[in-house]
Amino acid sequence: MASPSSLSPPQVPMELHAVNRKKLLDSFRDNLSLSSRPLHGFVFLQGGEEQNRYCTDHTELFRQESYFAYLFGVREPGFYGAIDVATGESILFAPRLPAEYAVWLGKIKSLSYFKERYMVDSVHYTDEITKVLHQQYQGPGKPLLYLLHGLNTDSNNFSKPADFEGIDKFTTDLNALHPVLTECRVVKSGLELALIQYANDISSEAHVEVMRNTKVGMKEYQLESLFLHHTYMYGGCRHCSYTCICATGDNGAVLHYGHAAAPNDRTLEDGDMALLDMGAEYHFYGSDITCSFPAVLRAHNAVISSMRPGVNWVNMHKLAERTILESLKEGNLLLGDVDAMVHERLGAVFMPHGLGHLLGIDTHDPGGYLKGAERPKEAGLKSLRTSRELLAGMVITVEPGCYFIDALLLPATENAQTSKYFNHEQIHRFRGFGGVRIESDVYVTSDGCVNMTKCPREIQDIEAVMAGAPWPIKKTSIPSVNGKT
Amino acid sequence: MASPSSLSPPQVPMELHAVNRKKLLDSFRDNLSLSSRPLHGFVFLQGGEEQNRYCTDHTELFRQESYFAYLFGVREPGFYGAIDVATGESILFAPRLPAEYAVWLGKIKSLSYFKERYMVDSVHYTDEITKVLHQQYQGPGKPLLYLLHGLNTDSNNFSKPADFEGIDKFTTDLNALHPVLTECRVVKSGLELALIQYANDISSEAHVEVMRNTKVGMKEYQLESLFLHHTYMYGGCRHCSYTCICATGDNGAVLHYGHAAAPNDRTLEDGDMALLDMGAEYHFYGSDITCSFPAVLRAHNAVISSMRPGVNWVNMHKLAERTILESLKEGNLLLGDVDAMVHERLGAVFMPHGLGHLLGIDTHDPGGYLKGAERPKEAGLKSLRTSRELLAGMVITVEPGCYFIDALLLPATENAQTSKYFNHEQIHRFRGFGGVRIESDVYVTSDGCVNMTKCPREIQDIEAVMAGAPWPIKKTSIPSVNGKT
Repeated sequence: MASPSSLSPPQVPMELHAVNRKKLLDSFRDNLSLSSRPLHGFVFLQGGEEQNRYCTDHTELFRQESYFAYLFGVREPGFYGAIDVATGESILFAPRLPAEYAVWLGKIKSLSYFKERYMVDSVHYTDEITKVLHQQYQGPGKPLLYLLHGLNTDSNNFSKPADFEGIDKFTTDLNALHPVLTECRVVKSGLELALIQYANDISSEAHVEVMRNTKVGMKEYQLESLFLHHTYMYGGCRHCSYTCICATGDNGAVLHYGHAAAPNDRTLEDGDMALLDMGAEYHFYGSDITCSFPAVLRAHNAVISSMRPGVNWVNMHKLAERTILESLKEGNLLLGDVDAMVHERLGAVFMPHGLGHLLGIDTHDPGGYLKGAERPKEAGLKSLRTSRELLAGMVITVEPGCYFIDALLLPATENAQTSKYFNHEQIHRFRGFGGVRIESDVYVTSDGCVNMTKCPREIQDIEAVMAGAPWPIKKTSIPSVNGKT
Repeated sequence: MASPSSLSPPQVPMELHAVNRKKLLDSFRDNLSLSSRPLHGFVFLQGGEEQNRYCTDHTELFRQESYFAYLFGVREPGFYGAIDVATGESILFAPRLPAEYAVWLGKIKSLSYFKERYMVDSVHYTDEITKVLHQQYQGPGKPLLYLLHGLNTDSNNFSKPADFEGIDKFTTDLNALHPVLTECRVVKSGLELALIQYANDISSEAHVEVMRNTKVGMKEYQLESLFLHHTYMYGGCRHCSYTCICATGDNGAVLHYGHAAAPNDRTLEDGDMALLDMGAEYHFYGSDITCSFPAVLRAHNAVISSMRPGVNWVNMHKLAERTILESLKEGNLLLGDVDAMVHERLGAVFMPHGLGHLLGIDTHDPGGYLKGAERPKEAGLKSLRTSRELLAGMVITVEPGCYFIDALLLPATENAQTSKYFNHEQIHRFRGFGGVRIESDVYVTSDGCVNMTKCPREIQDIEAVMAGAPWPIKKTSIPSVNGKT
């Protein structure tokens, strides 16, 4: 059986996490110095725990907590990790496993195995945290632990600070760590970019595989299954970055379709538009890619052409909105002055979500709003997951979309203020059409950006690939739409 | 593309859950009458909630809580359900979704949609629970709620009784419901059996597909990916009953291999034994199937030949142990008297897990130990998830295994009491061999049992299928090993 993939899972360099720890340590020390605080104490995080489903012994497949994954790269549950602010040493604490573990779950790994695998200075058991950190600590008074506590601006939930038996024998600080560590995650290292690029490569290839195999009469979830199989079988990606959105027909107007209450179960009909938002994850680092009809391609390309450090993301969102409104006006769905439409926030009727979000270990990577930054209040803009200026090293999704959502469209067409912009007859024809979105993962370089996603985007490319043409298509005269550098 | 499957996902009859509710109601009323309690109040359960991953907005794919699924079959999160003990009426309470839901997650379904889909007598919003149940209640005093609270004997966790704002306006009972509802789940209805049979059919077919495509040099997780893809793509099974165990070589000796810390990532070598324990779930109902080399086939077949109502499961476990010890003696790995070996619990050295467990909506379906029943204390037997006598209508796995686990084998070979039974040279040769397990899902009929699993089991069948023969193989003289009826 010839492999339908040219890719194979790369070795994961654990230096990546050592580099992450070094970056945090440098930045954290700078921050302490700036506020004239002494350089001692420990950055101290608790890794994730395995979860059972409800009251049963059904174990959910464990996925490490993202901040812990960022610093330590540990795939096993039940760990703690510390970084000594004074010496820079990294210490992992592993759970002491019962003897039955060897029978049911596998050989019990030695502490030296973890030390070598995760490239830390020492490894102890979690029941030794108090003893080890008290021995290691050089400063006065109780040892100080910098714990992770802060707001996730996408979920509005707070990260849970580490807890363990004996924590009362320490002084704890809940404020200093989270903003610094979050900001470290905003700008990616070369090693991180390589993993995100790989996740993009295998996911882009899987999108192409799905395009090639999509046929009328299939169920939406079969497209999901093709994607999952390609990225796992050939790419070694056991997790996806998020639940696959395989929306056809009017489901395309449901932004986060595919969840348990709308489980990708429609049958594809002739003439359907398909909006497929699917991305695989490799060693914690993710991808987030949407393919669909290129009606929003112009907005997608306009944004990528303008991205560079210093550009404000709210302005990029507005650029995308304006481009889409112009297209709709050209298409005779909207009437009148585009400036006035922008002013009336008509863009948010067709694109109610934000233009894009930071991407990394989390699909919605943290750091979108700096402390004190206010969220925009206007329709559409308020959905932005970041309002920051771009920095070199950020990876951000560019995902303009255009949807015909009754819940938004009907009020807007009936509103006295906005009714006049609509060609009501044309708009009516598009009810039930669904929606389209094109999403690429883009990293910002010192003087521009690079599109990490390599999917067919132009109509002729998509049609050629669906008809069986190889991808990438050997270009003769068609210019590439991707890979602006 | 010709489908490699002869199956397609069946329509799910929602009557199944109405039948389940009726069965509970009848049994619950009988129990109340027996203890001279009045027939009023409500059986009242809370469905599962969607979970976020740690502090992020990453939503885990929702899977309904199993008791709630059993009674109501609801796939959406955030529901409550009641059964009026007096009238038998079923009432669902759906969450009142915010207007943005329509933009992000899909059309907001009407209460009448849920009423029709789930075949209940009425549907209200969850913020109306107090009002509705107070109106409906006919008895004296505060309305009585029978809540679900009881021990899961596999996990040792307790189910979480329903909670909602206003529960202080009710009387609650935490004891009556759990044992009755659990016992209802032990004996399956015809509609339930049909779903478990379908999950078995598609999973058996997927096991065959994996056998056909397994090659030296592949990664274990590629076998998992093939299985997941087949059951989802052709079977419509989005969930598996449990994390796939794809153990090759000495990983076969790790009973629950495949979790995040041992993620099916070994490369297959020539001569490896493969132990593949994988089962798909369809509309909540699961399957649990293991394929491997047929060394334990004799035990598997001996047990299935003896199963009928009234047979005690502990005795079946002992039968499997004895059969395996006899085989090991024939193979010259063990020496001496098999009765003496049984007495010394040598069976548990090679099969430390229980022979099998109840199966249904949970892979380890509840009800294995009736209240007051003591768990066996002996090695091996203490791992049994049930010690009950078989009842017609039970579905139970038969999964004898034989493993060479250093953590068990080395102490036993060195122990003064047991050392003499081992042919040490032969045993040493098998260290690192891993293990084998054969697992079928069997339902108990009024006078015997039926094997619901249709995988190749005999060496010649497995080899033929791996070489590309069709399955089921057209038999000429080889007798079928499955399907004792």
